[in-house]
Amino acid sequence: MSGPWTWHGGGLEAAKREFGTGDWIDLSTGISPHPWPGPATIAFDWQRLPDPDALARLEAVAAVCFGVDARHVCAVPGSEIGLRLTGTLVGGPARHIAPSYRTHGEMVAGSAPLATEAAPGYDGTLILANPNNPDGRVTSAATMQALLDRRGLGGWLLVDEAFADTDPATSIAALVDDGRRLIVFRSFGKFFGLAGVRLGFVLAPQAIVAALRERLGAWPLSAAAIAIGTAAYADREWIAAARRRLADEAAALDTLLTRQGHRPTGDCPLFRLIEVDDAQALFERLARRAILTRPFAEQPHWLRIGLPADAGARTRLEVALADG
Amino acid sequence: MSGPWTWHGGGLEAAKREFGTGDWIDLSTGISPHPWPGPATIAFDWQRLPDPDALARLEAVAAVCFGVDARHVCAVPGSEIGLRLTGTLVGGPARHIAPSYRTHGEMVAGSAPLATEAAPGYDGTLILANPNNPDGRVTSAATMQALLDRRGLGGWLLVDEAFADTDPATSIAALVDDGRRLIVFRSFGKFFGLAGVRLGFVLAPQAIVAALRERLGAWPLSAAAIAIGTAAYADREWIAAARRRLADEAAALDTLLTRQGHRPTGDCPLFRLIEVDDAQALFERLARRAILTRPFAEQPHWLRIGLPADAGARTRLEVALADG
Repeated sequence: MSGPWTWHGGGLEAAKREFGTGDWIDLSTGISPHPWPGPATIAFDWQRLPDPDALARLEAVAAVCFGVDARHVCAVPGSEIGLRLTGTLVGGPARHIAPSYRTHGEMVAGSAPLATEAAPGYDGTLILANPNNPDGRVTSAATMQALLDRRGLGGWLLVDEAFADTDPATSIAALVDDGRRLIVFRSFGKFFGLAGVRLGFVLAPQAIVAALRERLGAWPLSAAAIAIGTAAYADREWIAAARRRLADEAAALDTLLTRQGHRPTGDCPLFRLIEVDDAQALFERLARRAILTRPFAEQPHWLRIGLPADAGARTRLEVALADG
Repeated sequence: MSGPWTWHGGGLEAAKREFGTGDWIDLSTGISPHPWPGPATIAFDWQRLPDPDALARLEAVAAVCFGVDARHVCAVPGSEIGLRLTGTLVGGPARHIAPSYRTHGEMVAGSAPLATEAAPGYDGTLILANPNNPDGRVTSAATMQALLDRRGLGGWLLVDEAFADTDPATSIAALVDDGRRLIVFRSFGKFFGLAGVRLGFVLAPQAIVAALRERLGAWPLSAAAIAIGTAAYADREWIAAARRRLADEAAALDTLLTRQGHRPTGDCPLFRLIEVDDAQALFERLARRAILTRPFAEQPHWLRIGLPADAGARTRLEVALADG
């Protein structure tokens, strides 16, 4: 019974119904367990329509963080809707690298999956993630540049950088320009550990940004998303410390998994992938110990494990893995 | 200089830059000045992705309030994006009643404006608001039923009920069903006075709901929108009291405007429309007294005035109107 959990991560309520309530550890997503602490200290103006100036300030602050000019930045209420709206704007034909994030296959009608190795041979619209999800594989800057150079006259390179914040060197956001057929997607909730805010960004040529704004209308973001995002992207000290901490904790997770006989893969510190004979059985075994992980319907050997929040959670994970 | 304010209401920051800072009264929108007080007492779970179960609960509670089955309810991050996404789904050809809310003319590409009087003669896709904005005109249930009956095989009736919460008798939400070509739009922010939450609903046949969910993706709403909306729509006592209060205060606004020589029109208590020789001049005169109203570029005689929050605001408005 891993059905409801092979679609997307999350779904803790469904897990509680199936496996019992208790002190659950949710490792089913790639969301940082260490949220940016600011929301508790911000008073939100829920009454008024968010001011266009405030939205522009958020986009300007985020643009600095991404290393791109603000005129190429369009804030969206979650990168999920950003991916989907952009997909309908760009249109087909398209190919999406698979396995990857499920939504990539739903962005453009008729998009067909493509293996990573086949990507250099295709010059049409190509959708991929960097780092990739769920395997955490990082594609080098040189390869990304080559993929971009390869786009034909009708092809776009659509890069989902939802997990790129942990290492800015991964990003090609700086290459977004009016003269390039490149669109980059960023997510606020994962690195900042605040997925409930629903905030993402589409970085694109100005014509695409304008078309997206027309689809979204005048007030795409909540007052909270604007206030939280503006303050968080400006908090360079917290961002730097979070990058160091996540790297340290990913190393501790690797040690734990290796000790339990697994070979964790992935270059993004927010999650690791392991291969086992029967991932569904392991998923259920962990779930009965109130640990939610992420199985994949089409990859019965894969289990993705998010970063535990602390030593206590790591210990519970290790005990559950050992208790086979 | 009323340019930035004839597009949509709001834009208080721009008004401050143009007319000076100070203790502004914002009467430029139709948002209730009496917000539902709950948000201050709710602790939001910003960390996790909003659970699908929580979204379903919100839609169920709102459905009861709207008088429609929950399977026809799709929550959206603001009715603005709901209007626009639905417009691209329904497609053309279409006509929109004008003058009305600006977005109605942008929902379906190529939509042409139609005068209210001409509506009964058109059997294609028709977009209108009830109550209408900015004139506050309420179309009777019998007329709405006739308009619905008049839709041909290819035509949809799209009804923006953003201001219908003040009087449930205005709504035709209960008629939404799989067998009817009717889509109704509801807005949370106006009646509940919490426009910064960004929450709206599309009430539609299940096929349209499914297509909308595909465009929106898995987590369309912020944790705050779900928590606030679920609690507010369930607060029947507050809702009933707010309806009475808004009606009383609209009557006080009518008295004030009449005393100053105007003839206010409108059946929605959240705003009134007045006609003057030079609405732009009156807009500027009020703005210089830190009162923001809503002029209209294409109707130079119209000024929409939102409901003042209290007797003090009414007095300031009356003094400003009198001081010609």
